[in-house]
Amino acid sequence: MKKAYVHGYDPRENIRLQDQASTLVELLHSDTAYPPGSRVLEAGCGVGAQTIALAGNSPRALITSVDISPSSVAEAARTAAEAGLSNVHFQQADIFSLPFGPDSFDHIFVCFVLEHLPKPVEALLALKKVLRAGGTITVIEGDHGSAYFHPDSEAARRAIQCQVQLQRRAGGNANVGRELYPLLCEAGYGSVRVSPRMVYVDASKPGLVDGFIKKTFTAMIEGVRQSALEAGIAEEREFAEGIRDLYRTAEVDGVFCYTFFKAIGLKPAQ
Amino acid sequence: MKKAYVHGYDPRENIRLQDQASTLVELLHSDTAYPPGSRVLEAGCGVGAQTIALAGNSPRALITSVDISPSSVAEAARTAAEAGLSNVHFQQADIFSLPFGPDSFDHIFVCFVLEHLPKPVEALLALKKVLRAGGTITVIEGDHGSAYFHPDSEAARRAIQCQVQLQRRAGGNANVGRELYPLLCEAGYGSVRVSPRMVYVDASKPGLVDGFIKKTFTAMIEGVRQSALEAGIAEEREFAEGIRDLYRTAEVDGVFCYTFFKAIGLKPAQ
Repeated sequence: MKKAYVHGYDPRENIRLQDQASTLVELLHSDTAYPPGSRVLEAGCGVGAQTIALAGNSPRALITSVDISPSSVAEAARTAAEAGLSNVHFQQADIFSLPFGPDSFDHIFVCFVLEHLPKPVEALLALKKVLRAGGTITVIEGDHGSAYFHPDSEAARRAIQCQVQLQRRAGGNANVGRELYPLLCEAGYGSVRVSPRMVYVDASKPGLVDGFIKKTFTAMIEGVRQSALEAGIAEEREFAEGIRDLYRTAEVDGVFCYTFFKAIGLKPAQ
Repeated sequence: MKKAYVHGYDPRENIRLQDQASTLVELLHSDTAYPPGSRVLEAGCGVGAQTIALAGNSPRALITSVDISPSSVAEAARTAAEAGLSNVHFQQADIFSLPFGPDSFDHIFVCFVLEHLPKPVEALLALKKVLRAGGTITVIEGDHGSAYFHPDSEAARRAIQCQVQLQRRAGGNANVGRELYPLLCEAGYGSVRVSPRMVYVDASKPGLVDGFIKKTFTAMIEGVRQSALEAGIAEEREFAEGIRDLYRTAEVDGVFCYTFFKAIGLKPAQ
């Protein structure tokens, strides 16, 4: 079992992404299934954490998964091969200069990608070019401003803000989930529908206590510790306190809330 | 039509509560229906904003609605009479010294009440005394810490914090929603299940833009203006800016999120 996780260029991060994917698969993917033969582009597949679920739910769709990072694409291809997926073609590509002609795809799937992009509307416009009229785009993003918990903690909120600030400095937006409706509208998609997917965790849900509070969210915040200290936006002691307080919400009287947003839009006929 | 709204001791507040109730009825009440003949206590009915939906969904249950304020009870009784409800008995009573014996009720319903109480666990314990073993308690509360929006605004967040601080000074907790699970557990209820009810509003939902963003949430925050200024926790100009920014989220590219929490627990057999 362990072998499947220890390859790749950043084993700890991969473990986190795999844990996150398995906890959240049902919540995020269960209502996305593409018809047999339909041409689907997964834009920004990363190490393939979402590709497994995407391809599993649409076993007869023809999926092309691209990412700008060659090493991520290679890792994603290995993961897909190990999972026995045969309906996904992996390819290195930049969303802003896709090697596909107009109308190349019936559907586009984008998960945890816009949060990293300085110009999300431009990305959505670039994707629209390769989508056929009447085709759909599905976008899933988190929103760190949707995180709240009990016991509440100023230090924990500041630790989360470190991640938000670092992502902003890198040109991204950790709070992009709430903006999917206006972003898709601005990029000219029609019939845009957004459905929030809230993760509510209390002690009656031990799988989510472990899989989401600890291994997904707090692990992610913990992962920016060094960068936050180096950037001078966190003090070591206070950051440690924030992480401790996030883990505290995983105890028997703790509660944790986080919301993902899933949007679907149509490319209008010209 | 207007006549139904302009009586009562605080017409503007009553209008807000009635608007809020009609927008949120489906979200909060649709899964609560008590069997014919069951004895139901609505604790803290206020002016009866929730009583109409409660009694409407359980037309053959025997409902007793109490509130500590005699004028609110009188107003609730008038509202119920105008709505033609015949299965509700109204009575002035204090949750902490209820005029009912043990096992007087099969079910208890508490909506937007714990947020006002300095000792919510003690209230839940007092209610448990009049509930029969095996009976249920249903608790619904909001959580102002669950409010986030686009465009984001520091002034808007500070205006919301005025309400949170004023409620805390009055002994309440405007962020109590997230705490329902631990509160019910601490009060000795069993099989506690909490389901969040998120209100997600964008321009594709004009009814909620008007009914929730403007007439419910922002109207509520606007309503604490004078108290916040008098308490010295807000500057006039900044508060006005916050309210303007909350209304801004109701425009065509705006988004607003808020979450209510609904909990159900059982009184265990002794």
